[in-house]
Amino acid sequence: MKKPIPKNAFYAQSGGVSAVINASACGVIEAALRHKRHIGKVYAGRDGIIGALTENLIDVSRESRATIRALKHTPGGAFGSARFKLKGLDKNKAEYERLIEVFRAHNIGYFFYNGGNDSMDTALKVSQIGEQLGYPVTCVGVPKTVDNDLPHTDCCPGFGSVAKYIAVSTLEAGLDVASMARTSTKVFVLEVMGRHAGWIAAAGGLAGRTPNEPPHIILFPEIPFEQQKFLEKVKQSVTDYGYCVVVASEGAAYEDGKFLADAGTKDAFGHTQLGGVAPVIANMVRDAHGYKYHWAVADYLQRSARHIASKVDVEQAYAVGKAAVELAVKGVNAVMPAIVRKSSKPYRWIIGHAPLSEVANQEKKVPRDYITEDGFGITEPCRRYLAPLIAGEAYPPYQNGLPAYVRVKGAAVRKKLATDFKI
Amino acid sequence: MKKPIPKNAFYAQSGGVSAVINASACGVIEAALRHKRHIGKVYAGRDGIIGALTENLIDVSRESRATIRALKHTPGGAFGSARFKLKGLDKNKAEYERLIEVFRAHNIGYFFYNGGNDSMDTALKVSQIGEQLGYPVTCVGVPKTVDNDLPHTDCCPGFGSVAKYIAVSTLEAGLDVASMARTSTKVFVLEVMGRHAGWIAAAGGLAGRTPNEPPHIILFPEIPFEQQKFLEKVKQSVTDYGYCVVVASEGAAYEDGKFLADAGTKDAFGHTQLGGVAPVIANMVRDAHGYKYHWAVADYLQRSARHIASKVDVEQAYAVGKAAVELAVKGVNAVMPAIVRKSSKPYRWIIGHAPLSEVANQEKKVPRDYITEDGFGITEPCRRYLAPLIAGEAYPPYQNGLPAYVRVKGAAVRKKLATDFKI
Repeated sequence: MKKPIPKNAFYAQSGGVSAVINASACGVIEAALRHKRHIGKVYAGRDGIIGALTENLIDVSRESRATIRALKHTPGGAFGSARFKLKGLDKNKAEYERLIEVFRAHNIGYFFYNGGNDSMDTALKVSQIGEQLGYPVTCVGVPKTVDNDLPHTDCCPGFGSVAKYIAVSTLEAGLDVASMARTSTKVFVLEVMGRHAGWIAAAGGLAGRTPNEPPHIILFPEIPFEQQKFLEKVKQSVTDYGYCVVVASEGAAYEDGKFLADAGTKDAFGHTQLGGVAPVIANMVRDAHGYKYHWAVADYLQRSARHIASKVDVEQAYAVGKAAVELAVKGVNAVMPAIVRKSSKPYRWIIGHAPLSEVANQEKKVPRDYITEDGFGITEPCRRYLAPLIAGEAYPPYQNGLPAYVRVKGAAVRKKLATDFKI
Repeated sequence: MKKPIPKNAFYAQSGGVSAVINASACGVIEAALRHKRHIGKVYAGRDGIIGALTENLIDVSRESRATIRALKHTPGGAFGSARFKLKGLDKNKAEYERLIEVFRAHNIGYFFYNGGNDSMDTALKVSQIGEQLGYPVTCVGVPKTVDNDLPHTDCCPGFGSVAKYIAVSTLEAGLDVASMARTSTKVFVLEVMGRHAGWIAAAGGLAGRTPNEPPHIILFPEIPFEQQKFLEKVKQSVTDYGYCVVVASEGAAYEDGKFLADAGTKDAFGHTQLGGVAPVIANMVRDAHGYKYHWAVADYLQRSARHIASKVDVEQAYAVGKAAVELAVKGVNAVMPAIVRKSSKPYRWIIGHAPLSEVANQEKKVPRDYITEDGFGITEPCRRYLAPLIAGEAYPPYQNGLPAYVRVKGAAVRKKLATDFKI
């Protein structure tokens, strides 16, 4: 009797990438290689789920072990990611059917989807439709989001490294502004990511321990922006300490939900300009107080800054990838490995798991008691939560002054289907 | 016969600070401590030269040796810097006379001025006016400018670390954009410092070796901006590689000298908005091609990023500080220690010196043959020049996930003059 051919695995990256999403890829791939009895080949989607829909699969076995290992210290999405949300089953069943068609053609029995809320929802639906179509697929989500807004996990891989980058940058820029304030810049605004949840902005708060240390003001999406109160606090900070450092979430918004960044700014041709929140705030301060200001928008720099990644974050990213495979080969379906905090000081964590149905499409915001009463800072409980997540450095190797990041060969798997699929 | 009392030294930081200006301070102070026969106490100006004018001196001997040592890994200006240019001797002799008055009152015979072009000019004038007023002061400039635009030195301390930060950030953000480009961001613009000289922008070019690797376009202040040509290059890059990464100097300007950043943008209230060049370029690309874009403005983050400082830069910053003292105690006046390149591969350098009269108020721009013919990239000679300057990592120590940067006590020296000085 022939041994049954083990099913292949499909791994895809989804949504905005991070400094450690490839560390999760590394965790998935290396674990799969250790479970050859259950898992045949590992395929990756070229540009995420789009690679599956269009049958553009990458044969990961064509990459060297050294390349796979180097993914652990390489930022970005090595196989390509996609901002592509599958519609509801009722609205677009064709997409799900196509996925199953491709999986069937390539003997794929495991689906590891590395993403955020939306992706967990997709993974859940794929597990359901596979069942319905008589081609069951073990679907395990691998958590990833710099926004840190997934429920049922202590934190999300990707977040710790952004948090460290923002805390370090706030500390450094704060020292810069402090030394210039007497004759030059008095107000500095750093815009950070996090449109709906203020976790990244909160991380800026780790840079200072006392009220005189930057940041003097944090603007959270969770706290409605009150212009007068903000401007008074800026003035107080400049009066008391000589300068004011503001960490502003891109999602900072007025009571009515209107983003500060959406300031109705028009360029010289009358076109609406989509600016950042930092210049809007800086101009507000200038108009009210006349202080000299500077502003920075970290944008992609913050989420790709592998050079200053958190060691804890790298380890957790790898661990959830590895755990996803271990759950899958045990036959646990429609779950997401989750980080469970056992203690804060010292930080101890283990990997548990949560059903996808409970994770999908939920959002974990910064709780009110993590934010100071005036709405401009972080509290001790917040600090206790955040501090361990930025612990430790995990420097990449360098060559000629630059990090030695790796690029995958990305060898294509031969197509088996006659049909194309338009996305 | 009593031994003559050695003269004290005055050290001041000037202009925009950097990740390694304190390493120069460390070099000055530690060298002064080794020359006790010539140099008595070291005083630092609180907020730079303003500290001298207002007689706000910091007694550096009250800082511990450990604090002085830690300056080597601490960014910003530990004693405070100032954007304050002394006027010409004919226009405002009072300021120079006041300096000499303060120096005389505190027995200061050495002036170490750590700054850029303007500061070298000031140091030169102080040496001249001291002579005229019968109180000779040995004035030695300590080069510092992230802009890298001082002549007569291979490079300027502060530049190598910004260069490394920008090269690393471009590499990292490039990997991010590459992985998202299929369904999301196709054009990424990173704005960098350098209003008149494009050295920092050029450093972004180190991130890629081949035309397909980011950055695909560099905008130099030295090359007049041609909108049509730029937009075509963006389109070509997106067509050929799927995406386009642009590194734009804040000083990018049209043929007539008008800065791109000065785009006549008005906010909702009709006020002129002083925006960055990055959003202007991003909007230009959107209007012409409709590509999804992202942009970042690194601003102070780039020049304070001690966490990713260049080892060569830290060593050179320390060396010029040390050399300044060694020149001064030999009686060499009105000079600036300079970095002399002996070879590029391997990089070998020694410290020479140049007369302040030849350095003052001059500007070294990126030569035309360092820029590719189309004006959008760097050439091999430029690469050979830049590459050694970002070599090596000089990580600061960390505590609880954050760099352990130091703050000086900044103990005040008792005032001796009855008169105040209004600046």
